[in-house]
Amino acid sequence: MKIIEGGSITDVPGFRATGVHCGLKKHDALDLALVASGAPCRGAAVFTTNRVQAAPVVLDREILLSHGEALRAVAVNAGCANACTGAEGMEDARKMAAAVEEKLGLEAGSALVMSTGVIGMRLPLEKIAKGLDLAASALTPEGGHDAARAIMTTDTVPKEVALATEVGGETVVVGGMAKGSGMIHPNMATMLSLIATDAVISRKALQAALNRAADRSFNLVTVDGDTSTNDTVVVLANGQAGNHEIDDAETAEFEAFARGLDRVCETLAQAIVRDGEGASKVAEIRVKGAASCEAAKRVAFAVAHSPLVKTALFGRDANWGRIMCAVGYSGVEMDPDAISIWFDDLHIVRGGVGFDVDEERALEILSRHEVPIIIDLKMGDHEVTVWTCDLSCDYVRINAAYRT
Amino acid sequence: MKIIEGGSITDVPGFRATGVHCGLKKHDALDLALVASGAPCRGAAVFTTNRVQAAPVVLDREILLSHGEALRAVAVNAGCANACTGAEGMEDARKMAAAVEEKLGLEAGSALVMSTGVIGMRLPLEKIAKGLDLAASALTPEGGHDAARAIMTTDTVPKEVALATEVGGETVVVGGMAKGSGMIHPNMATMLSLIATDAVISRKALQAALNRAADRSFNLVTVDGDTSTNDTVVVLANGQAGNHEIDDAETAEFEAFARGLDRVCETLAQAIVRDGEGASKVAEIRVKGAASCEAAKRVAFAVAHSPLVKTALFGRDANWGRIMCAVGYSGVEMDPDAISIWFDDLHIVRGGVGFDVDEERALEILSRHEVPIIIDLKMGDHEVTVWTCDLSCDYVRINAAYRT
Repeated sequence: MKIIEGGSITDVPGFRATGVHCGLKKHDALDLALVASGAPCRGAAVFTTNRVQAAPVVLDREILLSHGEALRAVAVNAGCANACTGAEGMEDARKMAAAVEEKLGLEAGSALVMSTGVIGMRLPLEKIAKGLDLAASALTPEGGHDAARAIMTTDTVPKEVALATEVGGETVVVGGMAKGSGMIHPNMATMLSLIATDAVISRKALQAALNRAADRSFNLVTVDGDTSTNDTVVVLANGQAGNHEIDDAETAEFEAFARGLDRVCETLAQAIVRDGEGASKVAEIRVKGAASCEAAKRVAFAVAHSPLVKTALFGRDANWGRIMCAVGYSGVEMDPDAISIWFDDLHIVRGGVGFDVDEERALEILSRHEVPIIIDLKMGDHEVTVWTCDLSCDYVRINAAYRT
Repeated sequence: MKIIEGGSITDVPGFRATGVHCGLKKHDALDLALVASGAPCRGAAVFTTNRVQAAPVVLDREILLSHGEALRAVAVNAGCANACTGAEGMEDARKMAAAVEEKLGLEAGSALVMSTGVIGMRLPLEKIAKGLDLAASALTPEGGHDAARAIMTTDTVPKEVALATEVGGETVVVGGMAKGSGMIHPNMATMLSLIATDAVISRKALQAALNRAADRSFNLVTVDGDTSTNDTVVVLANGQAGNHEIDDAETAEFEAFARGLDRVCETLAQAIVRDGEGASKVAEIRVKGAASCEAAKRVAFAVAHSPLVKTALFGRDANWGRIMCAVGYSGVEMDPDAISIWFDDLHIVRGGVGFDVDEERALEILSRHEVPIIIDLKMGDHEVTVWTCDLSCDYVRINAAYRT
């Protein structure tokens, strides 16, 4: 597996992309991305678990069911989520997809749409139609970076990655982009991600690989515990790599492809946490010695969601008591008197009781951009690592002023 | 039922109290409270659901089991939680209780202790012993206000209330105090509360009344969703009111007493939210039309815990989309297209879709100290109201710097 330096979604052969400004963001900022494939693609997706689902989520689910073997394009707008917009919102999403098909001369049902931004606002279709006009003629095999910029909302940096990996003797490329910074929670955050590959792979196998990759990446990161209405990860496979078709999850070829997809998803998911709204640092919370994977996850997310742990991280305060407290209320069976906690290699709690903290060393670790926190429950041999960021004054500032 | 203006725990006949400075807080601030009863009291309590339980919680549970018919005093220190302190911490808690008994000349097992403050720090027993010396000789029938001040941590105001109510023709007084401002979550937050009454009531009935009152008050408020290691609510009944003993939860006398206790607990719980760390306002989140009480609670707490809803409240932003989003991820069965939402009497969402918000009117409502948010799920006829506060920059500032 080889990461492509400065790679983007258009490093995948057969994909073109662009990002344009259509008027949803201020100051000429790119706000509409278009990604298209010359050949029909098989598609797979995972969506938000929120009961309130945005119109594009509902529409994409439909399209994947009926036309999942022959997808050609995805349009993504930032600035308006098209969520909680009722029947009219559904109509708007359909019109946006139809506009993509029209501008690119595609068959009905071959375009997906994604939206991110303010909830409850109607999609400004005229602006989007004009934008799609522009975008259709601006698609290029180098346009991935512009597309990744166009889907940003409160993101401060675009998030993209591409890699090449060998599958059954052929080189397969997987490349993708994501947006997300707030409203980030496992089981799909307000994150949109579009991933492309030239692998030859059945839809069933593609979906299996995506489910696995999402569980190992997007579902292990959290910024604020809010699961959005719009979360979507789509992967499109145009089959141009010429490998023998991957159809069985038990084969070496599947494993090789899935590892590549895992890596792309992990890179994008971690980039989202690093760019968490107002975040000054990332915490890598590793829970080991758990009785089950589920127990490890519950403990890790209790710690990752605790506002008190997150503000202590922001304050670079070695306040391990708040970690013990969050472990305790996770609801998992445990023996508090068995727990050990480390900041990186600094052992700070043993047998549920704190050491005299080496404050200087703790401050050094907590001043890093990435802080490893290890929690050993000593109840079994399962472990999990989740990623989160700290909770800063800037998070509050950004979100107190987001809509207006 | 009559609220006693400026009332405190020492408005209950037979109770004396005081607050002294023993050196746990800076600048001579009161940090040790002592409350004592001339006559032996029956006691009842509810404790944190956190698996990690502070030493005083473990000790008080023991004492209530073995000596719950004849309690005489409660000492409460702020500044040190005596949590995650292992076997030595348990010994410290026992020594603190023994010191109370010694200074007041009480039998072993007649004193309870509570602690609040930093987790993981050993109790400075010498300071506390000296403080108890001072306190024992400073107990007065007017000392309730000082006691309420002494248990504050990041609280900005003391929290106390007293009321008189009629039980079977006799006047019964219920008075109490509480502390709590952060690490506040239903099922006992970092909150300590001590309530006294002169009612004649069996322990079983007292516990039943306290369970009911806690479910209607402390368990319906949240500041940050962190359930602490030390939460404790104790109620002591010294039996001096001379009413016919309340022993049966099905009687009018029980109901009369329980209503008084409900009111005391509600007043203290709401005072905690109002004083939530950094809070600029309180939101009263009423969920109605739920299929069950449990469903109503899940939805209400999903909204009350959402950092995005809480920051929007801080920013006085009528961002109802974040409320819809949190309702959606609460995990409750619902029809998103049926939901209505109001800010006070301003209808902002109907059929899951927003109105054009009357921004001026919304701003007026969101600028109040108490913001009523009503959510109608239209799935049944159960409802619940929970209280929370907004999430401000000051919350982050306070908690980034709390320990040091």
